[in-house]
Amino acid sequence: LLVSVATPGCDGFPSLDSKESCKYWGLEREQPCSLLPCALCVQYYVNETEIVDFPRFRHRGLLLDTSRHYLPLKAILQTLDVMAYNKFNVFHWHIVDDPSFPYESVTFPELSRKGAFNAITHVYTASDVKAVIEYARLRGIRVIAEFDTPGHTLSWGPGAPGLLTPCYSGKNLSGTYGPINPILNSTYEFVTRFFQEVSAVFPDFFLHLGGDEVDFTCWKSNPKIRAFMQEMGFGDDFTKLESFYIQRLLDIISSFGKGYVVWQEVFDNGVKVRPDTIVHVWKENATPYMQEMAQVTKAGYRALLSAPWYLNHISYGQDWMEAYQVEPLKFEGSPEQKDRVIGGEACMWGEYVDVTNLTPRLWPRAGAVAERLWSNATVRNLQDAYVRLASFRCELLRRGIQAQPLFTGYCDHEFSGF
Amino acid sequence: LLVSVATPGCDGFPSLDSKESCKYWGLEREQPCSLLPCALCVQYYVNETEIVDFPRFRHRGLLLDTSRHYLPLKAILQTLDVMAYNKFNVFHWHIVDDPSFPYESVTFPELSRKGAFNAITHVYTASDVKAVIEYARLRGIRVIAEFDTPGHTLSWGPGAPGLLTPCYSGKNLSGTYGPINPILNSTYEFVTRFFQEVSAVFPDFFLHLGGDEVDFTCWKSNPKIRAFMQEMGFGDDFTKLESFYIQRLLDIISSFGKGYVVWQEVFDNGVKVRPDTIVHVWKENATPYMQEMAQVTKAGYRALLSAPWYLNHISYGQDWMEAYQVEPLKFEGSPEQKDRVIGGEACMWGEYVDVTNLTPRLWPRAGAVAERLWSNATVRNLQDAYVRLASFRCELLRRGIQAQPLFTGYCDHEFSGF
Repeated sequence: LLVSVATPGCDGFPSLDSKESCKYWGLEREQPCSLLPCALCVQYYVNETEIVDFPRFRHRGLLLDTSRHYLPLKAILQTLDVMAYNKFNVFHWHIVDDPSFPYESVTFPELSRKGAFNAITHVYTASDVKAVIEYARLRGIRVIAEFDTPGHTLSWGPGAPGLLTPCYSGKNLSGTYGPINPILNSTYEFVTRFFQEVSAVFPDFFLHLGGDEVDFTCWKSNPKIRAFMQEMGFGDDFTKLESFYIQRLLDIISSFGKGYVVWQEVFDNGVKVRPDTIVHVWKENATPYMQEMAQVTKAGYRALLSAPWYLNHISYGQDWMEAYQVEPLKFEGSPEQKDRVIGGEACMWGEYVDVTNLTPRLWPRAGAVAERLWSNATVRNLQDAYVRLASFRCELLRRGIQAQPLFTGYCDHEFSGF
Repeated sequence: LLVSVATPGCDGFPSLDSKESCKYWGLEREQPCSLLPCALCVQYYVNETEIVDFPRFRHRGLLLDTSRHYLPLKAILQTLDVMAYNKFNVFHWHIVDDPSFPYESVTFPELSRKGAFNAITHVYTASDVKAVIEYARLRGIRVIAEFDTPGHTLSWGPGAPGLLTPCYSGKNLSGTYGPINPILNSTYEFVTRFFQEVSAVFPDFFLHLGGDEVDFTCWKSNPKIRAFMQEMGFGDDFTKLESFYIQRLLDIISSFGKGYVVWQEVFDNGVKVRPDTIVHVWKENATPYMQEMAQVTKAGYRALLSAPWYLNHISYGQDWMEAYQVEPLKFEGSPEQKDRVIGGEACMWGEYVDVTNLTPRLWPRAGAVAERLWSNATVRNLQDAYVRLASFRCELLRRGIQAQPLFTGYCDHEFSGF
């Protein structure tokens, strides 16, 4: 059985510009499922066949959140396996957030020592991180790490004294903390050293810098912050203070030769970003997300869509259909604007998800998003997609992946890992 | 360490009238969790203490559906374990339905041979059923089997020729089948022999006979059925035909010395049932369920509540709270009526649930229903319940049960079965 793949080899890391179009002759490991009943592959001979396959969008990502709940290394690696089966090519690792800081930093080991749920059992060591990156690379998956600032950083506080803004209750310190303190030089010294490490550890050209949901309450309560606002002429507009921080952060990241992805607020607030910035659209309300896609691309930035693909939002029934029916380019805009939509990401935020329910909640639902991002815009028939997804789900069970059913029925090989 | 339990032994099967109130002195296996951090129990000595504990409702059930998806024996047994931890005392086994017939009948082996998803791998043998009943008995749990008729019986058809109603398309047979054919003597011969077996196999006094959602379309299409309706003077009222069937079924079951539970439609349609019938309230719309509870108990029947506890209905966030806040006696009625509410059941219907997602979807959510059915009506504080449920969920993880998180956070012993 002769298998040849026309795409050249894959030493080095995949990137946003990696060519993913392939020409297959004969059979490739993952491919034959669309040609043959898979369990029978090994016993079959196939007439010469030619497959030309290429993705519609270059960035087909999946976000996991390892801060709200810790996910063991094994769960991340298994997710990368299933991502590869689905032709996802970006693992967006939302690694730290308010609730916990599981990333073990070499430069600032106190961050996880004091910020992880458990400094021994609930952390990602340098070698864990390397393992994830290499496992992903071998599957053609990029790892984009997100260290979200200046909000979503409560867990940074205990290990980085002075980094967060102390909140006030009237004239007194309240004992609680807010976002990163943007008015101190020490903040930027810390941020520089921390992101220098992160830039080295994660080889992808892009970092995700977050920038979403900054709560101004604490900043407003702090007299030193208010004085700084006056001094800078920001008036009462705290988005200006936020932008002041983000601006400096972006310059720091640029100085390390990295590109960045930011959540849409950074764009909405008018922060001056580099022209090659990727804006990540996630809000479902306020500005309808398709309007946001139009605005982002009209401003010349590249856009990533996640708003309709929050897979942590569950409902009764076949909710994959809604995710599948999304058309990422369905907004008013020029062909150039459409070209700036580089893809999207399915998100599995962790408020209600940990290793006990991650896999069934993710698969095969995320497969609907994967197909939307890979296949031609004309591939939209729900009945056909159901048949593919249901049969793919049975394949997952055969491989020991705890993927949940789409609807009533059974598979020849049921999940055996129970 | 002296442990004595005042309740006398437990040979024989539990029943609806079993005394479940207990007086403990010292420590009992499950009890100390409310007294001590459990991981430490074995190292602690406790001053003599006295616990008096008893359930508010006698029937605290959980329904599993093994027809829409097959659940392996191991999953059922594990569910019984966790039910016991939650003091559930009835396993309502919705064993067969339209999609598949996994019950291996000795009298009619063709039923599962032709009606199971797979006659070898997707069936419950006589020994499986015995194992479930005995495993349950040892945990103080009754097993009430449901063989739902005359609707929800499509899977019975292939193995029982002539049992189902042949549907017509105009003047011709359409090739499809409807509910059980209520006009043939052969039907009642079959039903008698089948339920004779079932009555012997399942030792509980009660059988669940279903009786819900009978679709009249096929009956209406069939000329012989229409002729029978005329003959019997039923006019166009097909509920009368349904009642005719149910009436005969109930008489058959009574003749075996069994009691029965039926879904609310049987009551709604005015079927004459025995005074000791239990009516199972499940509809959320039409008549609001609390009004239905009032009507059922006013008519003198005992009532079981499930309408607000369909745990297969999922939504984003902490939906256990809604289940927890239900008050089963919150309807207008006399004290005698309230006494007729014997309890309720959490239901996990199987359209979207199989072994891959059963456990995380069930636990700890079903625990909220269990507490509502066990504890005093005054135990209602959501914050307190959250703390109990979250700590209980960590206990489940320590025991290897894949229970999903209630919210952000971690457990000292995370789920290790991944």
